[in-house]
Amino acid sequence: MTPKEIVHKMFDNDPFSKWLGIEVEHIAEGTCQLSMIVREEMLNGFGIAHGGITYSLADSALAFAANTHGRQSVSIDTSINHTEALKEGDKIVAIAKEESLKNRFGFYKIEIKRDDTIVALFKGTVYRTNKDWE
Amino acid sequence: MTPKEIVHKMFDNDPFSKWLGIEVEHIAEGTCQLSMIVREEMLNGFGIAHGGITYSLADSALAFAANTHGRQSVSIDTSINHTEALKEGDKIVAIAKEESLKNRFGFYKIEIKRDDTIVALFKGTVYRTNKDWE
Amino acid sequence: MTPKEIVHKMFDNDPFSKWLGIEVEHIAEGTCQLSMIVREEMLNGFGIAHGGITYSLADSALAFAANTHGRQSVSIDTSINHTEALKEGDKIVAIAKEESLKNRFGFYKIEIKRDDTIVALFKGTVYRTNKDWE
Amino acid sequence: MTPKEIVHKMFDNDPFSKWLGIEVEHIAEGTCQLSMIVREEMLNGFGIAHGGITYSLADSALAFAANTHGRQSVSIDTSINHTEALKEGDKIVAIAKEESLKNRFGFYKIEIKRDDTIVALFKGTVYRTNKDWE
Repeated sequence: MTPKEIVHKMFDNDPFSKWLGIEVEHIAEGTCQLSMIVREEMLNGFGIAHGGITYSLADSALAFAANTHGRQSVSIDTSINHTEALKEGDKIVAIAKEESLKNRFGFYKIEIKRDDTIVALFKGTVYRTNKDWE
Repeated sequence: MTPKEIVHKMFDNDPFSKWLGIEVEHIAEGTCQLSMIVREEMLNGFGIAHGGITYSLADSALAFAANTHGRQSVSIDTSINHTEALKEGDKIVAIAKEESLKNRFGFYKIEIKRDDTIVALFKGTVYRTNKDWE
Repeated sequence: MTPKEIVHKMFDNDPFSKWLGIEVEHIAEGTCQLSMIVREEMLNGFGIAHGGITYSLADSALAFAANTHGRQSVSIDTSINHTEALKEGDKIVAIAKEESLKNRFGFYKIEIKRDDTIVALFKGTVYRTNKDWE
Repeated sequence: MTPKEIVHKMFDNDPFSKWLGIEVEHIAEGTCQLSMIVREEMLNGFGIAHGGITYSLADSALAFAANTHGRQSVSIDTSINHTEALKEGDKIVAIAKEESLKNRFGFYKIEIKRDDTIVALFKGTVYRTNKDWE
């Protein structure tokens, strides 16, 4: 399967990524770009986007980017810094970059931006299983 | 304001924690216990709970626990390991523990469990602002 | 090999743990306790222990604790918060706790203390290879 | 003080960075490049560089890069992935990149390389105090 076929197979069966309103903007081996718009139901008690929203967008980007190589890959360790508050209506974009790819592990950085401003920095490590996408 | 008043003020105005179906089971200074049930719309393309769901529950637990001291506190750095797959219908509980509390920073561990099994391990650092809850 | 035999085999051939002056205080399956004393050559430009010193002690504790089960295990992801400054002459103790053990991965928390005060919090994830200690 | 003056003031009084044999290769506002060579006394029980060595190099790079702006800055949260084993004699280079700079916090990524190969990935968050270098 090609990177696009794999990501579309993952995304078409992913109810939470759909609830988030994620749009798949770009897919290639080892990377992807996703976007979404912050809705009222995604806010927390401070009236800004709940930290789980940007995390979820980035975690989907990690899963898609890591699986493009054709081996089923699962997240082992992820971390995120929230650097800017997000308001309802803000469009955010997540861009996944593969920092290092080994036989058993892949290491990714995902930048989440609103226009040109970084709003969150995400780091993810995945374990690459022996199971291929087919 | 008491820890319970602060958390209820945060929670009553937190649409995303409500969408998650979070129940506040326990609140005390420096800690809290939350629970929720995984729903179909929270699954990912592997048919298990999206990583963003457990993260979001834990992130709410971090925010509530850290703010109980009466100073407004914001998350600076969070990380999570997903150690078990979760299915639709699973009930998960997040228990926040304050590991260290300093003037400017608080350090928390949040265990997420299904029954007695750890399903995710979350670590969070918060910055304690000068603004009090009132 | 027993947990003690494994750790002593690792420690006896570990020049950097020896340079640190690490003492192995306790070993059991899934855990260990190490101590050391901060020396002048371990300080940084602020006159306090370099962050790499507490990290190194904790990283040794992670390696020892994770290998006690008899499977060779390697660190995949580690993080640390430095919560207290350390001075020359301070004795610090690292206590490793296994939070979750799976077939392929182990998850550990290591508390670093000076007397009863936490001075750093370390989290480590290891990959458990198929190679046994023998 | 200029970035170079600040880093040299820090480095000239930093016994552990000197023990590591760190060379300061480049300094500019928000960044720095350091190098060192792995020595026999830096190895662990597997005969490869102890994880604390690459961490220490990266942690020095974080401290230097973050302080170049003239405000005294301290590390709050750091994490590292070790992606390649290092042998005695290997030369490693750490390059600090400022991902985001806010009033109170700075977020940095540090790549550690041997020639063109990434051997470790480090992420660091610093707290920017009100105290200036002078």
